[in-house]
Amino acid sequence: MRVKNNEYDVIIIGGGPGGYTAALTIKRIHKDRRVLLIRESEKAIIPCAIPYLPATLGSCEKDVLSDEPLIKSNVDIVIDKVVDVDRKEKVVITANGRRFKYVKLILATGSKPFIPPGLEGVNLKGVYEIAKDVEHLNELLRAIRGSRRVVILGGGYTGVELATDLISLGKEVVIVDMLPQCLRVSLDDEFAREVTQELERKGVRVILGKRVKAIYGGERAEGVELEDGERIPGDLVILAMGTKPNVDLAREIGLKIGEHGGILVDEYMRTSDPDIYAIGDCAEKRSFLTGRHKLLCLASIAAYEARIVALNLFGIRTHKAISGHIGVSITKVGDRVFAVSGITEDEAKREGIDVICGKFETLNRHPSGLPGATKVKLKLIFSKSDMRLIGAEASGGNEIAELINLLSFAIQKKATVSELIMLQYGTQPLLTSSPIVYPIVSAALDAYMKFEKAHR
Amino acid sequence: MRVKNNEYDVIIIGGGPGGYTAALTIKRIHKDRRVLLIRESEKAIIPCAIPYLPATLGSCEKDVLSDEPLIKSNVDIVIDKVVDVDRKEKVVITANGRRFKYVKLILATGSKPFIPPGLEGVNLKGVYEIAKDVEHLNELLRAIRGSRRVVILGGGYTGVELATDLISLGKEVVIVDMLPQCLRVSLDDEFAREVTQELERKGVRVILGKRVKAIYGGERAEGVELEDGERIPGDLVILAMGTKPNVDLAREIGLKIGEHGGILVDEYMRTSDPDIYAIGDCAEKRSFLTGRHKLLCLASIAAYEARIVALNLFGIRTHKAISGHIGVSITKVGDRVFAVSGITEDEAKREGIDVICGKFETLNRHPSGLPGATKVKLKLIFSKSDMRLIGAEASGGNEIAELINLLSFAIQKKATVSELIMLQYGTQPLLTSSPIVYPIVSAALDAYMKFEKAHR
Repeated sequence: MRVKNNEYDVIIIGGGPGGYTAALTIKRIHKDRRVLLIRESEKAIIPCAIPYLPATLGSCEKDVLSDEPLIKSNVDIVIDKVVDVDRKEKVVITANGRRFKYVKLILATGSKPFIPPGLEGVNLKGVYEIAKDVEHLNELLRAIRGSRRVVILGGGYTGVELATDLISLGKEVVIVDMLPQCLRVSLDDEFAREVTQELERKGVRVILGKRVKAIYGGERAEGVELEDGERIPGDLVILAMGTKPNVDLAREIGLKIGEHGGILVDEYMRTSDPDIYAIGDCAEKRSFLTGRHKLLCLASIAAYEARIVALNLFGIRTHKAISGHIGVSITKVGDRVFAVSGITEDEAKREGIDVICGKFETLNRHPSGLPGATKVKLKLIFSKSDMRLIGAEASGGNEIAELINLLSFAIQKKATVSELIMLQYGTQPLLTSSPIVYPIVSAALDAYMKFEKAHR
Repeated sequence: MRVKNNEYDVIIIGGGPGGYTAALTIKRIHKDRRVLLIRESEKAIIPCAIPYLPATLGSCEKDVLSDEPLIKSNVDIVIDKVVDVDRKEKVVITANGRRFKYVKLILATGSKPFIPPGLEGVNLKGVYEIAKDVEHLNELLRAIRGSRRVVILGGGYTGVELATDLISLGKEVVIVDMLPQCLRVSLDDEFAREVTQELERKGVRVILGKRVKAIYGGERAEGVELEDGERIPGDLVILAMGTKPNVDLAREIGLKIGEHGGILVDEYMRTSDPDIYAIGDCAEKRSFLTGRHKLLCLASIAAYEARIVALNLFGIRTHKAISGHIGVSITKVGDRVFAVSGITEDEAKREGIDVICGKFETLNRHPSGLPGATKVKLKLIFSKSDMRLIGAEASGGNEIAELINLLSFAIQKKATVSELIMLQYGTQPLLTSSPIVYPIVSAALDAYMKFEKAHR
């Protein structure tokens, strides 16, 4: 912690991926600006890898964002809690009574675990939420070590990744979700179904389509009771039911809050106060397609927004290449990777968008006898009116992660079905599908044929 | 082989990836057209996986393109050699004296191994070229089994992949190349250097910057003699010195041949005869950037051209999304993947294009303690005048294959540096770099800063 004096060009509140990327990028672009990052915990955790703490990583120490790049970039760091902002004087006030003056203030206060109001038993011993805090997580890790049977409430990304990690430790693992499939919020049914299958193949018990009435037990949790009365025993209950934006400070200092509970921002991440920006989980997002407000808690989005701020903080430098958030989610469940970008077929239907979907399945190696060969499944969602790509879903091997990023860029660049058929890709036997059936091109061709048929 | 009669809407000569993809895609788009594929060998080999025959696959039978999809699509197959085409009567004539009438003819005759004229000793026993022929390859596999020390002439893609496969069998392997690094034709020095290092780390002896004067020996090859007189002993010598277009038939029937020895084609792959098309290795290419003619022997390009023909054979259906070939090459050497798309920095210099390169190195996992974490190195080449992406080179883990495909699409879509900084990507701890340092965005930012500096 090296604070020269109390005046800064930029103060960033929050040390997660958003705040961290903002600090580094601002110093890269504006070398001479003085930047202060204030965060509450001594160590900043890498949030996306929290599900891998129990088995794959083994300890929180292996999941810490190093301060070294910040220090090397001459970013000052203060460990404290910001309790108030004097917007008129442009001063940040901390719990320890320190005051720091800013020219530009960036809120990167992240998100908090969502716990359904009225869920009984959440305060019993042996019930844990997933908070991005080293001490809390260390306690959870100790509890996991002492447990035999873990019940995870919520089959979203955190839930399914945590289940995959815990099952590899030899724990009995149960996931309970009220939707008909795991990850069903993110994925269309045919992909979500595969997620559930893969979890079950790995030995996870998956209970779907059921609400949890209560967590039961004496002093300690002994299990969960479903709405139909069934009791699922477990000595550890983990709440992975999503997150909500952490807007406590923003609300307190009178910034406008959006309809989904995030801080309202414009296309340059400016809040209702022109000198205060908000990025990452705490800021409300807008759909790239409909412009509708929504939430999207992704570290990649936080880093993306951090770069928008860094580039445009002291004068607009970039016309934003696109307006609105596409969103890319990638996960590994058991041995399979699942990924989605843009909007799903279901979401398109809900939004009243007529779509044509191109589908294709093949292997991710050629010939099929090569090591690591596994099925790739791809679905491309085109808007019917102009045959531009608006969404993509895929499952397969590890290569799916960058494949979906290609498709995200295609959505961003408003690629047409013809452009995807004419995609100039490379292939390699050990690493990709065969050139004859490269999945993006093949799925695009499938959509093209359906489009032709519809217009004949 | 099911030939109904001798008249076809489309006849394809050649059963490699180009011909195969053309046949399938034409039947997909034009269901009722009668398609005949004529090829010389009973079984069609998957060319890209030939280097993996000795160890990883173990036999040619595991590297065969199945005829099943063709048969299912009602493509007729004839095993024969086409010896002549009567262009006036539109009739194909085979070695066995069969005659087939066509409306459209597609030449997909591929390429042949290039052997430098005057290289002494190429006819000795124990000297093998890499021909795409099952019998020939089976003989080579037998020779490899009986050999102890293999000398590979040529450090291109086939050479380095074959060396990687052979070393895993416990053979002594030597590569000789006249350039200063392996893969130096494709990659800039800093990447090509890494290829050589990785080969050496795996135990391959790499002799660079030296020409081979002769292959020496009695009846059998005993090694190669370099121009400086040094003798490199080996009981097996493999010629992997590149390929040349197989245009024997095209030349014979009077089609125009380009300056690099490939069949001249227009943007819809039409030759100088309006009813004859040429695709794949036998057809000459044009650079996406300069329009200059060149050769590019890649299965992915052959499949791409096959789709252009399939879509536009009976009336133009697509305005070609781009004009010219970008080209994507991907390889795995030892444990590292290398990939390139578009033009390199060296090539840009040779072509007189002023460039700014963005560079970045990071890990391909986050945090770094996760299994499989390895260094990713990325270089983006932008044309200085408009800061659009014209090339990309990368090395890293398996994810590099689809990462380079993303960049190839970015080149195709003429992406600017700002668009790449604003790329909406996804990340996942087990599968990608950290969102904070996603390599494409970080390398683009590096280029952006250099561009700003150059214009200050």
